[in-house]
Parts: sequence; structure tokens; C-alpha cells
Amino acid sequence: MTSRRRFLAGAGGAALTALPLHAPVAAADEPPGTPMDGHGAAHAGGGGANGATFRGGAGVDHAANGFDPRTLLREFDYGTVTAENGRTVRSWEIHALDREIEVAPGVRFPAWTFNGSIPGPTLRATAGDLMRVRFVNDSEHPHTMHFHGIHPADMDGVPMVGRGIISPGEEFTYTFDAEPFGVHLYHCHVGPLAEHIARGMYGTFIVDPPGGRPEADEMIMVQHGFNTTFDGLGNQLYAVNGIPFVYMNDPIQVRRGGLVRIYLVNILEYDPINSFHLHGNFFDYYPTGTRLEPSEFTDTVIQAQGQRGICEIRFPYTGKYMFHAHKTEFADLGWMGFFDVVDGETT
Amino acid sequence: MTSRRRFLAGAGGAALTALPLHAPVAAADEPPGTPMDGHGAAHAGGGGANGATFRGGAGVDHAANGFDPRTLLREFDYGTVTAENGRTVRSWEIHALDREIEVAPGVRFPAWTFNGSIPGPTLRATAGDLMRVRFVNDSEHPHTMHFHGIHPADMDGVPMVGRGIISPGEEFTYTFDAEPFGVHLYHCHVGPLAEHIARGMYGTFIVDPPGGRPEADEMIMVQHGFNTTFDGLGNQLYAVNGIPFVYMNDPIQVRRGGLVRIYLVNILEYDPINSFHLHGNFFDYYPTGTRLEPSEFTDTVIQAQGQRGICEIRFPYTGKYMFHAHKTEFADLGWMGFFDVVDGETT
Amino acid sequence: MTSRRRFLAGAGGAALTALPLHAPVAAADEPPGTPMDGHGAAHAGGGGANGATFRGGAGVDHAANGFDPRTLLREFDYGTVTAENGRTVRSWEIHALDREIEVAPGVRFPAWTFNGSIPGPTLRATAGDLMRVRFVNDSEHPHTMHFHGIHPADMDGVPMVGRGIISPGEEFTYTFDAEPFGVHLYHCHVGPLAEHIARGMYGTFIVDPPGGRPEADEMIMVQHGFNTTFDGLGNQLYAVNGIPFVYMNDPIQVRRGGLVRIYLVNILEYDPINSFHLHGNFFDYYPTGTRLEPSEFTDTVIQAQGQRGICEIRFPYTGKYMFHAHKTEFADLGWMGFFDVVDGETT
Repeated sequence: MTSRRRFLAGAGGAALTALPLHAPVAAADEPPGTPMDGHGAAHAGGGGANGATFRGGAGVDHAANGFDPRTLLREFDYGTVTAENGRTVRSWEIHALDREIEVAPGVRFPAWTFNGSIPGPTLRATAGDLMRVRFVNDSEHPHTMHFHGIHPADMDGVPMVGRGIISPGEEFTYTFDAEPFGVHLYHCHVGPLAEHIARGMYGTFIVDPPGGRPEADEMIMVQHGFNTTFDGLGNQLYAVNGIPFVYMNDPIQVRRGGLVRIYLVNILEYDPINSFHLHGNFFDYYPTGTRLEPSEFTDTVIQAQGQRGICEIRFPYTGKYMFHAHKTEFADLGWMGFFDVVDGETT
Repeated sequence: MTSRRRFLAGAGGAALTALPLHAPVAAADEPPGTPMDGHGAAHAGGGGANGATFRGGAGVDHAANGFDPRTLLREFDYGTVTAENGRTVRSWEIHALDREIEVAPGVRFPAWTFNGSIPGPTLRATAGDLMRVRFVNDSEHPHTMHFHGIHPADMDGVPMVGRGIISPGEEFTYTFDAEPFGVHLYHCHVGPLAEHIARGMYGTFIVDPPGGRPEADEMIMVQHGFNTTFDGLGNQLYAVNGIPFVYMNDPIQVRRGGLVRIYLVNILEYDPINSFHLHGNFFDYYPTGTRLEPSEFTDTVIQAQGQRGICEIRFPYTGKYMFHAHKTEFADLGWMGFFDVVDGETT
Repeated sequence: MTSRRRFLAGAGGAALTALPLHAPVAAADEPPGTPMDGHGAAHAGGGGANGATFRGGAGVDHAANGFDPRTLLREFDYGTVTAENGRTVRSWEIHALDREIEVAPGVRFPAWTFNGSIPGPTLRATAGDLMRVRFVNDSEHPHTMHFHGIHPADMDGVPMVGRGIISPGEEFTYTFDAEPFGVHLYHCHVGPLAEHIARGMYGTFIVDPPGGRPEADEMIMVQHGFNTTFDGLGNQLYAVNGIPFVYMNDPIQVRRGGLVRIYLVNILEYDPINSFHLHGNFFDYYPTGTRLEPSEFTDTVIQAQGQRGICEIRFPYTGKYMFHAHKTEFADLGWMGFFDVVDGETT
């Protein structure tokens, strides 16, 4: 706790120097047209009244990371589709991969991943489809894929049930019906469990209701953190979709008046809860996405680890609207972004 | 964490002596007729089986503080009403003010406030009204007013969007439609955000549905805390409406059988959640107040920071009923009160 | 916090040696047919990829403890039934008892209990019954019984209201209507409150709706923890129904296709929230059990202390399905179990 808070109190920069950190605060050579170009005042970057952190700083090298949260946001992997006895079968191949990921400018995190990205790919099917996930463990550590969903015990991906742990170099194909419809998740279930999750082994899987949902600009947001000190006590960085502040530096463009649908998942390790707050607007909330009617109309929801839901939003006005955890510490350390609401087509 | 817990373990007194504290435990000269005059036994005040803290002790000087939670509880500020093009316009003037507030007997807290009270005034309008809030920064620190509600980006009160930060001596008028109906909040959104919230810069705003809600004895309860050590690690005191234990010393009188409506808001900083538990009774709960049908009938609700809702209660019996956080630490350190249910008129 | 985490990091064994602990990891003489007999590999017991703790180790001595979570799970105490003026009256006698309980293999905890078990007996009535609970304090400490439910102030079981504290050797009979229907709880409300709860003074009371609920395999799960170091900072062990991992060692048998109804209660002290996650399946959730229609269909729910609800499940497949807190630390330290879904009759 102390080390985490000291990190915060130090505005990010000081404490991070223990890591190979280059530029937690705004670099001098930053291009002038930053996404947060408000009235007056030079761009503040990290620290001070505009924000306690490096949120306005230089970005990470997405290409070197091998994934980019700006595209991952709207990527849904429907798998390879075949038919068996008149039934839709969707197949995926997922590899456990150990990868070093630049999670903040200059901060490289030795991650364990599904297919090299944090979060892993967003698998998507329709209720009643058969899902086949070939899992190949190319990591140096034992892993499994545990899916939240309805399936037989031997497809549950936990130690000592069914095939159990998949050792390095081994593989297993998880096969199960896509049910129930909703927004679910998958994660490794091997011990020490906290570390396997905290290292990055999680992703979303979505089961669409028969007939689908109304057309919308759809995106996923997986809430998580990075325990960069590996002390097992808490997180030094917070994010959605892998990189802290990525949607501060590059706001998510959405169209005024259009329906926006967020598949929101919380897999944050160590902290008891996470939350999602939208500025200037409200959303319909569908907990777990298992019903077609929303349970709540609000601007702030809470999620414990493993909880998830769908947020449906229409923006009546153009402009930039923050979204972030309404847990200040998480927001200050990376779990914060912007929607940029525009008229006409988005880029 | 350690310092906070040590404070608790020390029953309040010991740790607080670092502050100019007079009487955390019951003073000897306390008047005999205390509100907690149960059967037998002398009035225990702080410590022991009756409660771990100074909750039965002497009160604070509300007059010197400039606000009194016992009246603030039921104060709703409808603003100055005018009409423009047949539309109701409500106008307020809010000043950021640095104030020293006696938050517990002898404990003076250097607060940052909206209009001098913690929480700030409860602004109230009807859905569709136009709200105009002239915000004047008479504090020595930069501030904004960020409203939870639906409004254009340039009225959002965050750094680097629209007018952004309002510097000391400056002012800005936030203008927006009152929507959606429900119970919302406002708070400063300037960094370091945790401190700006923890210092006291928050309040409630209520948007009534067209036609209003059924007549009731209405009150607001804003849940928050005080980090009196300013270590940024947690709170040493917890409260609703500014002063710990104020409704223990002066129970809230309500009428048996009458409808009681609580606008419940959580803005507690540092801690992950807050909760509200009512003794001896149940309530209908309307999360965010955005619907006219309750979602739940219970005696305990959880709220993350920024969440809020409406509790509707009818008491079938007279007598004293506790309400408090069902987080023992918060209750022991101030977030606890009594309803006093009486027949006939309340005083 | 540090001591708790060190306990976790030490995989259970090392840190527990400060206590009179025999066998936190699997004993060599364990019978071969363990409940977790997965594919290949010797039974790993505690530690490593199969789980970070002593969860596969030897059990505690339930007979010496005087209660057994494997039977307590399905025990509902309907009291002694009489009739008065045509009304059903249910009477119970509850004794506060100080008991040393073996909470993990070799770890003896000096508990304070209701009738000698943790949790106390599950009291059960139908809405409209009159409940009479004769509470006899045979403990060396002052106590009360505070019920969550609707009742007059003098039956609330808090200090300084009505009879207030029941001193050692004294007794009091709490009399109140069984209302509203739902799943509620009772606990001691004497200060220091955190310790009185943490020591084990809690239990469930259920009020059935008129006409009851559909027939089901019913069980209670009371979520709690043990602060075995008595530092007041957190818990070293987590459990449902008294003994960590008891349903890992002895999975709960349920019948495929049958309706399973769990009365789920959270009374965990020190931690802000608890959660319940079911593997391989979903459940209907009824918060507080006060309505006959579920509010949510999910596999993960969050509960703050004092919250509770009903989970209704049907298992479509046979096999072993984990259930646990989706807070890894809690699961690793004991709050984890298995359902064993079988065809035909359960044993």
C-alpha cells in the first residue's frame, strides 16, 4: 500500500525511476495539437491542476507492442465459421505468449498474454453456436483458459478438473455452447491466480442474443491494472484495454446521436472494485448483458472483479467527454479517457 | 493505512492529540439528558461496549462553522426563478471558499468549500428547467464545478475542456438543461483530484421529474470523510452532511407512518465503497433516482464514489433507529446517526 | 496489511507456523480418492499451479468443533411452534458461547458464537409469524442480537436503546413480527463492533413469503473471515459457513436439473466487499430476497457487509464446479468450494 501511494504522491515520475522509465511527464517535443487543447494555458501534461500524472505525455510504441488499443477497441473476433449438422461452429486458435509490453512511456512490463495483447482477443458468437477454442501454451508457464459461461466441468479450465492445467508446449481445445447471451470473460485460472491475472491473462467473450442487438458503434473496454513492482500488494498503473491514458492521448471518436454500445468488463486484480463514470451524459446499463432491457439509467456503475455489463449511450452534443473510474487513484494512474463526439462520419 | 487503523484502535483520543483536540470522549460536564439515554448504566460516550468512539461526546460549534447539518439536512436551494421564452430558468451563485471547519469536537479542518458548507448547497430544479450556476472562485486554489448530468462539453467543468480551470479571483457561469431527472452531484474536478474532493468540494443537485414525486419528508445525506492527517492514505473521520455523529447527538425526527425520502449520495474519497444501513426497517431504493419504480426493497445498499440513489421509507413504529455505514470502521469513526420516530408533528 | 499479504505470499504454510499449525499442505497419508481427482499428476494439495494454499490439506475436527459446515449448510431452524390467537408463534433459545474453534488444520480460534457454531443457527419463519428469540448470554463478554428486519426500536438489539446490552449471565427475549419476507441476518451490535463481528457473532434468518418459494435443494452460505492475528487490520482466513475450503475437501452434492437455492449472506468484517462467482453456470439473483422476480441473471455478484440475496441455479451438466469469491486473495485463503453435480439421488 505504502509503495503504491508513494508512487501516486510522487506524481508518477519519481517512483517510476526504479523502472527503465524515460518520460512519464509530457515530453518537450510533443506535437502542439494535443487532444486536450483547451482554452489558454500551455499543455500541462502530468502534474498540477490539470491532472496528477503523465496522462498528457508521450505515448507508447504500439507497433513494437504488437497491438494497439485504438483499434483493439472495436475488434471482434468471430472465429472461423463452419457448419456441422446445420449448426454454426466457430473456431479460434489462442496462444499463450510471454511478451514484454511497454505499458507506459518507457515502462516495460513482462506480461503473460493470450495472443500477445492485453486484453486478449474479443471472441464473439451468437447464442447457440458451438465454440471451439484451440489453446496452445507457448508460454514458459502453465496456464488454462477459464470461460465465464455455461459449459461442462471438463471445459472449465481449472486445475484438477477435466484436462486441468495446460503445461508449456501442450495444448487443449475447449469446446462448448455459446450460452447464455451476454458479455462474459475468460482468464487463466492457474495458481498463483492473482499473478496469472495480474500479468495480463484475460479477455472478453461476447454471446449475441438470437437476432442480435440494435445496430450500434460497438466497443469493448476491459478494466485492469499493472502491478509493475510485482509486490503483490496493488497496482501502480490502471487502464482499459492495455495502455494507461491511451484514450486521453487519442480520444475515441463517436458520432453525435448515434448509438454507442460499450461492452464493459472488470478484471482488475488486487483492488476490491472498479467503476466507470461517463461525463456529461448517461447510459442504459445491462448487467452481464443477459437481458434485453436495461436495469438502470445512470452515469456511474460499480463492478467487482469478474463482473461486466453493457452500456448504451447516445451523445446529444458534440465535444470531448471524459470517462474514467470514479476512484480517483485509478483515474490518476491511467484509467481515464475521452470520447470525442463529432457530427457526420468518424475517422 | 497503519496510521488510520492506529487512530481507530486508539479509540480516537490518542491519535487525535496531534491535532488541537479538546474532548474526543464524553466530557464530564455533559448534560444528563443525552439522546442516547437507554436503560441503566451511565452514559458511556466514547469507548467500550456502547461504541468505540467519541460519538456521545460534546458537539461542535455549528454557528462558528457557518452551517448546521441539522438544518442543512432538509435545505433545498431552488435558486432564483425567472422565465425566458416561457421556460423556467433557475440561477444560483456559488463561491469557492476556504474555511476552517470544526469537524469533531476541537478538531479544525482547513476545508475547501462551495459556499462555506460541507457538503455545498443542494441545488434543485425540475427536468427541463434551464440551470445557471455562476461560480466565483474566492478560494486561494484553482477549482471548477463538474456536474453529473447531461450537458455540453464546455459546461463540464474539467481542466482543458471549455473554460477549464477557474483560477482564484475568476468566475464562470455554467449553463445547462436540468436533465435527466434523478439525484446527482457536483464536485470540483481540478488536480490533485483526490485532495480537491477530500477537502470538501462537493454537493448534491436534484432534478425532479415533471410533476414531482409524491409528497414526503425529504432530506439529503451526502456520505464523505475527512483525511485529517493529510497523508492521502485514507480518512480519519467519516460523516454524512459534514459533521461526524451529528445525528447521533441530535437524532433526526420523523413522523410515524409518513413517507421519508432520502437523497443519498456517496462522494467518499480514498475508500473503495460506502454503504447505508437502516435499523429496524426497510426502504425502497431508486438507483440514481432516474426511474419512478424502485429497483430494490432492502435495508442495506452499497455505493461507489459518485453513485447515489433515493431511499423511500415509512416507519411503522415509534422510537430510535440507527442508520450507518455497514462498514464498521466508517460507523465507528462518525458515519452513524439516529432517526427518532414520533407520533404527531415533528419539532 | 503487510502481515496479511505476507501470509498469502508465504503460500499459507510459512506464516501460519506462528500459530499451532500442523498440516497446512496436503498430508502424505491422505486417501487417494480426493474430491479433486483430476487428470494425471499427484494431488498437489497446497501451493503451486493448482492453488496457492492449504486447500487440499487435511480437514479440521468438526466433531470437536461441535458443528459441521457440511450439515449446517442445509440446516434450517424453524423453532418451537405454538399458536396464539390463531397466529403462528416460533420460539428459539440462543446462547452466546465462547468457543475455541479449529478454523484450519491446527489453527484454533477463540471465537464468540451464537449456540456454538459459526455462523449461528439459521432461523426460519414465514412472513407474519411472531418470532420469539430468548437470548441468554453465557459468554464472558457483553453482547446483543441485532436483527436485520422490521421491528420496534426496543427489539433492535443495540446499546442504549430498549434493553440495550445484555451482560454476561443476563438474558433477554427479542419478540417481533417476521417481516419482510427475504433473507436477512442477525449479529451482535456491541462495541468494539468490528471485533464482535469478527469473532463470529452472526447468523442468518430467513422469512419465507406466504405460500413459500418453489421446492428446491436449499442451502445457506454465510461469507465471513477470521482475523487470526487479532491485529484488527484484516483477515488471514476467509470462508463460507465457518471452515475455509471445507467444500473443496467435501464438495456439495446437488442433482443435475434440480433447482438449487442458495441463501447468500455477507458479514465479512474489515474488507470492503465480498463476491460470489459460480463456475460453468449462471444463476438468477434476488437481492435481499424481498421480491419474487430475480433482478439479474449472472455468475458473479458483489455484496457489501450486511448485504445478502438468493441465488437460484439449475445445473445442466454433471461434474465439479467451483464457486468462490472473485477476489483472488479471499479465494486463495479459503473462500472457495466445489459443487459436485450428479444424476439421480444425492448422498
